[in-house]
Amino acid sequence: MRSELCDKLGIEHPIFAFTHCRDVVVAVSKAGGIGVLGAVGFTPEQLKEELDWIDAHIGDKPYGVDIVIPQKYEGMGDMSPEELEKQLTAMVPQEHIDFAQKLLADHGVPEWEDGTKTMGLLGWTEATATPLLEEALTRDKCVMIANALGTPPADKVKMIQDSGRLVGALCGKVKQVKSHVEAGLDFIVAQGGEGGGHTGDVGSIVFWPQAVAAAEGTPVLAAGGIGTGQQMLAAMALGCAGVWTGSLWLTVEEAHAEPAQKESLLKASSEDTVRSRSWTGKPCRMLKNDWTEAWEAPENPKPLGMPLQGLVSSDGIRRTAKYAGVADTQKVAFNPVGQVVGQINSVESTRGVMMRLLSEYADAYEKVTAQLEG
Amino acid sequence: MRSELCDKLGIEHPIFAFTHCRDVVVAVSKAGGIGVLGAVGFTPEQLKEELDWIDAHIGDKPYGVDIVIPQKYEGMGDMSPEELEKQLTAMVPQEHIDFAQKLLADHGVPEWEDGTKTMGLLGWTEATATPLLEEALTRDKCVMIANALGTPPADKVKMIQDSGRLVGALCGKVKQVKSHVEAGLDFIVAQGGEGGGHTGDVGSIVFWPQAVAAAEGTPVLAAGGIGTGQQMLAAMALGCAGVWTGSLWLTVEEAHAEPAQKESLLKASSEDTVRSRSWTGKPCRMLKNDWTEAWEAPENPKPLGMPLQGLVSSDGIRRTAKYAGVADTQKVAFNPVGQVVGQINSVESTRGVMMRLLSEYADAYEKVTAQLEG
Repeated sequence: MRSELCDKLGIEHPIFAFTHCRDVVVAVSKAGGIGVLGAVGFTPEQLKEELDWIDAHIGDKPYGVDIVIPQKYEGMGDMSPEELEKQLTAMVPQEHIDFAQKLLADHGVPEWEDGTKTMGLLGWTEATATPLLEEALTRDKCVMIANALGTPPADKVKMIQDSGRLVGALCGKVKQVKSHVEAGLDFIVAQGGEGGGHTGDVGSIVFWPQAVAAAEGTPVLAAGGIGTGQQMLAAMALGCAGVWTGSLWLTVEEAHAEPAQKESLLKASSEDTVRSRSWTGKPCRMLKNDWTEAWEAPENPKPLGMPLQGLVSSDGIRRTAKYAGVADTQKVAFNPVGQVVGQINSVESTRGVMMRLLSEYADAYEKVTAQLEG
Repeated sequence: MRSELCDKLGIEHPIFAFTHCRDVVVAVSKAGGIGVLGAVGFTPEQLKEELDWIDAHIGDKPYGVDIVIPQKYEGMGDMSPEELEKQLTAMVPQEHIDFAQKLLADHGVPEWEDGTKTMGLLGWTEATATPLLEEALTRDKCVMIANALGTPPADKVKMIQDSGRLVGALCGKVKQVKSHVEAGLDFIVAQGGEGGGHTGDVGSIVFWPQAVAAAEGTPVLAAGGIGTGQQMLAAMALGCAGVWTGSLWLTVEEAHAEPAQKESLLKASSEDTVRSRSWTGKPCRMLKNDWTEAWEAPENPKPLGMPLQGLVSSDGIRRTAKYAGVADTQKVAFNPVGQVVGQINSVESTRGVMMRLLSEYADAYEKVTAQLEG
């Protein structure tokens, strides 16, 4: 399944694995795909530690880093991260903070031992994203950068490409594909509404071919609904140059998630996810639970926009991750995942998933061939 | 692209075309697929007329009929259609009728010349559906019946199968697939959330393979997002036995729609559709417009359930269809269509669409093959 994009990246199969776990990055790249570490949520120091580990374990295989590099907010470009965070924090109504904290308390999510709350921007602003990008660009084996939200600013695109790396970005609408193409990106990740995390509402089967057409030759990776080799063949049939997978890696053996979180994911059906603005302020697909329902109820506060809602929820994101198995924490935990979660019902090894994708792909191709020959 | 299902139906390609236009039924069947006439909205007399015409023009080709055969409503089974309609009409708040009529008036949709309103059940109840089914079963060339909503009652399944015809039904959830299998249906139409008309919210790329797995060998037709041969290959890669298409046929040369309605469809993007309960009471995908937005606004009446909302909207469905090009009628018209509408931008002949699907399918297969051979 070689392609020009594979050759440029030095990989064997066009399978991109988005994950927050360094072990998964290494295992996917070693199996012939490419692991892409999601850096949002890490401090620059934490990212340095993760990349050191990856560099030490990945051998001569390449990997990627996924960052959120937003376009600048008007008038905020010159502030320090601390000033920016302070100014944004002042814009968050106390009612929202209280409501979020009450939801956590009502479900028995423990407080931090030192009694502090952590409110932070989770890397959602340029000020917090730039140091992450700079760290990634010091690594020889990091051959690509993906931007999770929007077209990266021109100076960042130039910085990445001048360093000899490829730069791509996610999107869920045709107009975003065009914006990515105009910015000269090297690849585009087209995510249908099925996908986990921030996502649009046009389904993959419809969006992928429209993205391919709008990309005018720029390679398109299919995201949103890839859990099997059959789905991978469907993506390739629609003209995509490869697949971008995320949900698949949340429950593998190598994934760091807490047992309670893996359990929530393994037992979920495809109907158990929802597009909700309740964590980040933008529509984001995740497991439906008491938290997502509470922010929908007419009598409760409405989610703020991005990045403000992130300030409301960040303490919850961290506490529910740390105390995943305690009391009713899973009922208010942030579990971003795509509808494909309904097809993921057992723990596999990362290498096993890679082998399965390839063999299912081959089987599906054989079946289609047999049908054509009638 | 032969299959067992094709052989049973006596067709060449597993392309099922759902349409309300008899001319499209005939043209699709003559091109080697199978036209399926949507009978909802016809009186038994009108359906007789349509089927007479089809029988006279289709030669020796087969066709199908699509009906809504709901499970019985508790305690309503023995009423006449007139009694049932009267009783249901009494349950509709006047506020809803007035709101619907005002929306039509505000957009300049003309009144009926005789000043009457038409409120009717549009074939959404068993009492109105049964005569339509009985009419269809008098036709030798009608080789299959599809049920648009839910598993048909056991007596209807038996009636259809005993007559030597195949019976299938649409669905959007795995539990509905299982219900269809238990009822012994001959085929299942699995529609992803992208699809037009009544639809679930799990995307096609995720739902189709789950439906195939749950169907345990019963053939599954892929619906929701089929507009090209590439999308058809994607469906076959996911294990489907064929494709069920609807949106594709709304704008073909042979379609009866008014020019203004075709124009609305041709210019729409995939982001211009919405799942709305505003016409039938159940989530149904259609073009977004002033009507769908009005029923979402917090200060306005909320849509009733099915079949009551149909009584509220049926006058609007008929008037906006009849006066499609007058004043702002399109802004309050009922235009059910899937997200694939964004890929349909010009008027084609029905035969042209059939030929295009097949040649695109072959091209996509060639490309996937070339990629595999690297």
